[in-house]
Amino acid sequence: MNSDPFIEELRALVGDHGLLLGDDMTPHLTGARYGAGRARCVIRPASIDEVREVVKLCVREGVRLVPQGANTGLVGASTPDASGGQVVLSLSRLRGHCEIDVANRSVTVDAGMTLWALNERLEPHGLWFPIDLGADPSIGGMVATNTGGTRLVRYGDVRHNLMALDVVLLDPPGELAHFGSALRKDNTGYDFKQLFVGTAGAGGVIVRATLEVHPKPRQSATALVVPASDEAVIALLEALERDLGDFFSAFEGMSATAMRAAFEHVPSLRNPFAPEPVPDFAVLIELESSSSPQYTGLELQETLNRFLEAHFDTLVANAVIGDREELWALRHSITEGARRMGRPIAFDVSVPRSRMMDFRRAAGAMAAARFPQLVVVDFGHIADGGIHYNLIWPADAAVAYDDATVAGLRDALYAIVVEDFGGSYSAEHGVGAHNLGYYAKYTSATGKRIAGGLRAMLDPQGLCGTVDLSAGG
Amino acid sequence: MNSDPFIEELRALVGDHGLLLGDDMTPHLTGARYGAGRARCVIRPASIDEVREVVKLCVREGVRLVPQGANTGLVGASTPDASGGQVVLSLSRLRGHCEIDVANRSVTVDAGMTLWALNERLEPHGLWFPIDLGADPSIGGMVATNTGGTRLVRYGDVRHNLMALDVVLLDPPGELAHFGSALRKDNTGYDFKQLFVGTAGAGGVIVRATLEVHPKPRQSATALVVPASDEAVIALLEALERDLGDFFSAFEGMSATAMRAAFEHVPSLRNPFAPEPVPDFAVLIELESSSSPQYTGLELQETLNRFLEAHFDTLVANAVIGDREELWALRHSITEGARRMGRPIAFDVSVPRSRMMDFRRAAGAMAAARFPQLVVVDFGHIADGGIHYNLIWPADAAVAYDDATVAGLRDALYAIVVEDFGGSYSAEHGVGAHNLGYYAKYTSATGKRIAGGLRAMLDPQGLCGTVDLSAGG
Repeated sequence: MNSDPFIEELRALVGDHGLLLGDDMTPHLTGARYGAGRARCVIRPASIDEVREVVKLCVREGVRLVPQGANTGLVGASTPDASGGQVVLSLSRLRGHCEIDVANRSVTVDAGMTLWALNERLEPHGLWFPIDLGADPSIGGMVATNTGGTRLVRYGDVRHNLMALDVVLLDPPGELAHFGSALRKDNTGYDFKQLFVGTAGAGGVIVRATLEVHPKPRQSATALVVPASDEAVIALLEALERDLGDFFSAFEGMSATAMRAAFEHVPSLRNPFAPEPVPDFAVLIELESSSSPQYTGLELQETLNRFLEAHFDTLVANAVIGDREELWALRHSITEGARRMGRPIAFDVSVPRSRMMDFRRAAGAMAAARFPQLVVVDFGHIADGGIHYNLIWPADAAVAYDDATVAGLRDALYAIVVEDFGGSYSAEHGVGAHNLGYYAKYTSATGKRIAGGLRAMLDPQGLCGTVDLSAGG
Repeated sequence: MNSDPFIEELRALVGDHGLLLGDDMTPHLTGARYGAGRARCVIRPASIDEVREVVKLCVREGVRLVPQGANTGLVGASTPDASGGQVVLSLSRLRGHCEIDVANRSVTVDAGMTLWALNERLEPHGLWFPIDLGADPSIGGMVATNTGGTRLVRYGDVRHNLMALDVVLLDPPGELAHFGSALRKDNTGYDFKQLFVGTAGAGGVIVRATLEVHPKPRQSATALVVPASDEAVIALLEALERDLGDFFSAFEGMSATAMRAAFEHVPSLRNPFAPEPVPDFAVLIELESSSSPQYTGLELQETLNRFLEAHFDTLVANAVIGDREELWALRHSITEGARRMGRPIAFDVSVPRSRMMDFRRAAGAMAAARFPQLVVVDFGHIADGGIHYNLIWPADAAVAYDDATVAGLRDALYAIVVEDFGGSYSAEHGVGAHNLGYYAKYTSATGKRIAGGLRAMLDPQGLCGTVDLSAGG
């Protein structure tokens, strides 16, 4: 028993197992990259009805709710603030429902089910939900963030694959709203579910989603390609889409420093360029085909090889055709390699693809001039204009890491991204406490006014989620 | 000169050429299928600034504005009511801007540019905007309707391909808002542009859009397939997506009556089934590939033929492999054939694909029992769950056409679609005066409440567009 009657009321709604206090809360209080706070309690309802009751009670008491999925987000949007007064509403136990409609190529799942668990369920049907991420987020969290991932250019983001959403509203408190349907065509006015996509939990608690799912690939082709020049990078992307657009699924750019970070600090990796020096830039290209070779006669790796040969010298300087897992291991080892170099300062930005290489030059010049102690370790999803433009503060740098310098760097880099290149300061990670200041700076007054109207309508007390999109300050 | 000072103020904003009165208004007053009214005038601004001034003036005067693109919509959403007090705001002259970013695979166009004109501009770059429709709508109208078309299963609808939107707001009057960006990844809070997609002009005047465009197909494969049974239709669809998903672009179902309507009334058509009887149901299947056969070695028609052979008897009873244009001519002649049989009563509905054939049986049984004088002539985009479930009142029927019977039919059919099958009463045509009563009936109270809040925020006097999504009555 707890002396706080509010806690006891919550416990009565969800049972002992549904309530965490004290040290049991720890995994729910700190984010995967940013965000660390305190909470009054963590509540883990196991049914939609329990979520409704929890919301009702918190609205009655005017208590701020922090909806949390698998807590894998990278901008501090799913962890409480330092006040200790907020309640973390973990959806992790809400995962009992999973209804696959194979003929409709759709699935309806509870918000707490994770991506990998969902894909396990889909696997026997030859289907998958193809948002490809390093982490294993919950479906509700993926909707609230609108996650993208490495195969966005082929499958789109969560928004593109979302058919319907069940949301527990704050007003009327605890009302369960169903928006959308298991239909691909339904043009009957506002698509209300859009109001809950990518808004970091603002407006209501996502409890269930209906998703479009896709046939699993049967073959893939991979190559690590060194473009013939800086200009050749985007020209190669254009050629791939024009000539192999049916299959094109990933185009992951990596700078020399990013590749060296991986090779030097992740001993299990083999450097396929050795003994030659690591090139200035390389692209991991992947094609996928879900079709049956029995009918198509397609040999995808051969197809990719023929394409690369045809563009040798003009667009392609070198290409490594190797084991798929091995090539992707390089891409996936960059983050770890960078971390071992020092302290990473992460940027998840995007620009129009046509300006990607210009952006890299401009950002690199700024960093070299103003932050010479830092090492740029950039890599990303060039095909969708996204780039993780990370910088490392080396462990052995002459100047010690300090927050003010990092704040100056963030201001300077986002100014280049947004003001000079028409890009985004958060390409795929969403908006949370970590970047809310830039939301305030770069969101139009009109946008904030509309967000304010939505907040007044959906959550008049401002109780749901960690961000206020009407202000952002 | 006109004696109405308001008209003269409008004329001063747009010039003589931008203002239509009297008989000159005629093409703007009647919709392509439904909707016929009167207007105070038709105003045709030629620039975004002119649109802003017109909106400002109409807001000041409290005059209702009917935004109109190419006026090709099918639900009466782009024509004025009978009052004669509304102003038709035609965007047809706003088409000067067309900026193609080939490397970004995007295009920014004024709202009045039409689909075919846009595709002409894209053609030299090997690109297209692949929303495939019978009509030639304006881009602004396509956004306001969220059009889909026959290739939705491959490319998605307009919403899926919309990157940014410029909208002239009613409040503050004439404010130009820019929502979104030429980015594929931009997760920075609300995606405000969604508030203007598929809402029939509610909330603001769409003046410019940035669209994602796609590589044009280089080869296609077509077959007119007779499924082995009713159950085989959806099984065939599943097999196609599983085995040829990279290329699958259309799966157009046609009933025997639909095909007969075309063969009997459109003399230029050849009946490929003759002398055998027309089958109960057939599907026009299309595959498309944008890839270069030089690299893939793919022969798409061969691929489709092999697939069909492999499924002969189990799923496929018969297949006509013929000239692509000729096979599509059958599909495109149904509407004309039906019109020559009598008076069509059109239904643009959708259901989950898994329930499509059950829906057809249920709807057919209802029609036979309650409306025996009518002939069902149904066809549609089975792969996305859409079906044009049209009924014909034959010219030679014993009972004469009457509106009350048609109203009863609409109630009965939509009840089956929405209440029994979880479907939509407007799959792709949107919401307009023609079906607003069903919007009122089938939209949740929560949805209407949110729509009302948006209306209060974006258009407090309720001046923009022909529908009130907060009420719908």
